[in-house]
Amino acid sequence: MQKIKNIAFIGAGNVATQLGFALVGAGFKIVQVYSRTQTSAEWLAGKLSADFTISIDEIKLDADLYIISLTDDATGEICKKLDLRDKFVVHTSGTLPLDILSSISNRYGVFYPLQTFSKCRNINFQDIPLCLEANSQENLDLLKKLAKKVSEKIYEINSGQRKMLHLAAVFACNFPNFMYTIAQKILGDADLEFDLLKPLIRETAEKVQTINPVDAQTGPAIRGDRKIMEQHLELLKDNKELYDLYKFISDQLVTSNKQPENEQL
Amino acid sequence: MQKIKNIAFIGAGNVATQLGFALVGAGFKIVQVYSRTQTSAEWLAGKLSADFTISIDEIKLDADLYIISLTDDATGEICKKLDLRDKFVVHTSGTLPLDILSSISNRYGVFYPLQTFSKCRNINFQDIPLCLEANSQENLDLLKKLAKKVSEKIYEINSGQRKMLHLAAVFACNFPNFMYTIAQKILGDADLEFDLLKPLIRETAEKVQTINPVDAQTGPAIRGDRKIMEQHLELLKDNKELYDLYKFISDQLVTSNKQPENEQL
Repeated sequence: MQKIKNIAFIGAGNVATQLGFALVGAGFKIVQVYSRTQTSAEWLAGKLSADFTISIDEIKLDADLYIISLTDDATGEICKKLDLRDKFVVHTSGTLPLDILSSISNRYGVFYPLQTFSKCRNINFQDIPLCLEANSQENLDLLKKLAKKVSEKIYEINSGQRKMLHLAAVFACNFPNFMYTIAQKILGDADLEFDLLKPLIRETAEKVQTINPVDAQTGPAIRGDRKIMEQHLELLKDNKELYDLYKFISDQLVTSNKQPENEQL
Repeated sequence: MQKIKNIAFIGAGNVATQLGFALVGAGFKIVQVYSRTQTSAEWLAGKLSADFTISIDEIKLDADLYIISLTDDATGEICKKLDLRDKFVVHTSGTLPLDILSSISNRYGVFYPLQTFSKCRNINFQDIPLCLEANSQENLDLLKKLAKKVSEKIYEINSGQRKMLHLAAVFACNFPNFMYTIAQKILGDADLEFDLLKPLIRETAEKVQTINPVDAQTGPAIRGDRKIMEQHLELLKDNKELYDLYKFISDQLVTSNKQPENEQL
């Protein structure tokens, strides 16, 4: 079985950055960083003690693994231009299929870290689920071995499942965060600080670490408390978007057939 | 200034239970628990070493503070029946106005703990924001003194603000939890465990403890990634409710005018 020691990054965004730090911390060597943008390539290469290039033609063939961490469109583009022969290559996308890489190499896989990455926020990689897939058992075993060095949470997920997982993640992360944004706006309009809601936001997320969300549901909608819902809609009547959003979600919550088990909120 | 030592609970639900435990832990004595339901009254009274009653007429007048912790409707009902003379009485509702208590006593206030309470889950009360209001400065000072013994987070919030806060809490807690429920359903349909999303849910909530939610927003909608949104809608096409919900929220996210600063998800 081949060994992975030297790694090249194709892409220098948030995922590449966080993953690069984790891999260097686990003893891997990053040999090269490619990015279309010179400042990004140079910055990340500097952080990871790697070389950098902004030209696809200058991507060297001396790495044991190539991690493509670009937007889906950019990954699609680079798949048309890059030839890595028999080098092992993976992408980190939640939505692209495994096979998109088949034109680049005959050894390929997916290394999808399921987390929300933001600039200015470092993450403990050990806790991030890594969703792996590869075009052969040998390549999968190689990826698993690598993944175990940076995370405790390793999952084998095929391309179809990964699409569903990515969709679920939108509901688990992007949409809740948008709800936080709205909550902050409502508080601001009432001269209240967002700090007030932080313990509630944290506890709501903590609860479902041990309780099924359907059993953790609280609030006027699940109680079928029409009076409070109408009061809330009255408060939102001058903002059509928020009014419609509140009504739309509440209506779905009301019709979800689980009986209320909790109180306040 | 009067002192609060003996407390009576009117109501024996989740809020009364958690608050009761916190108050006993801080050295207060719970003298009586009233509930319409004998099992609830008896159970909580047992836990708090208090007497109990299921008759409004038997609520004793020897407590320094009466905490009404019922549904809004039940609070409205009891306000018609109860006469506590000059005893200090508060309710714990996020939505009822302060003045609803003016028929019961001439000393009244609001003690609203902003948190989501579930059975089978104990909460560290120290971290719960307590939103206080009273009909006089003296009564407010009394409440503040009490509140500081059980929480580090004390806020003066008037009735108008409290309504907005409660509305914001629906967006910060109830709606995100519903999104978690949907995410779990999507995963289940793809034979995937909900465990996969737990670190993401936790990190999404942790991020906004230090970053404004508008700056923490990630995902296809805020990136304006139509291709992925269409793929997601295609995956949801057999479930009209989820399809509509995804589209409704994504459309609002797309039109929110903040430029993307983050990547994946």
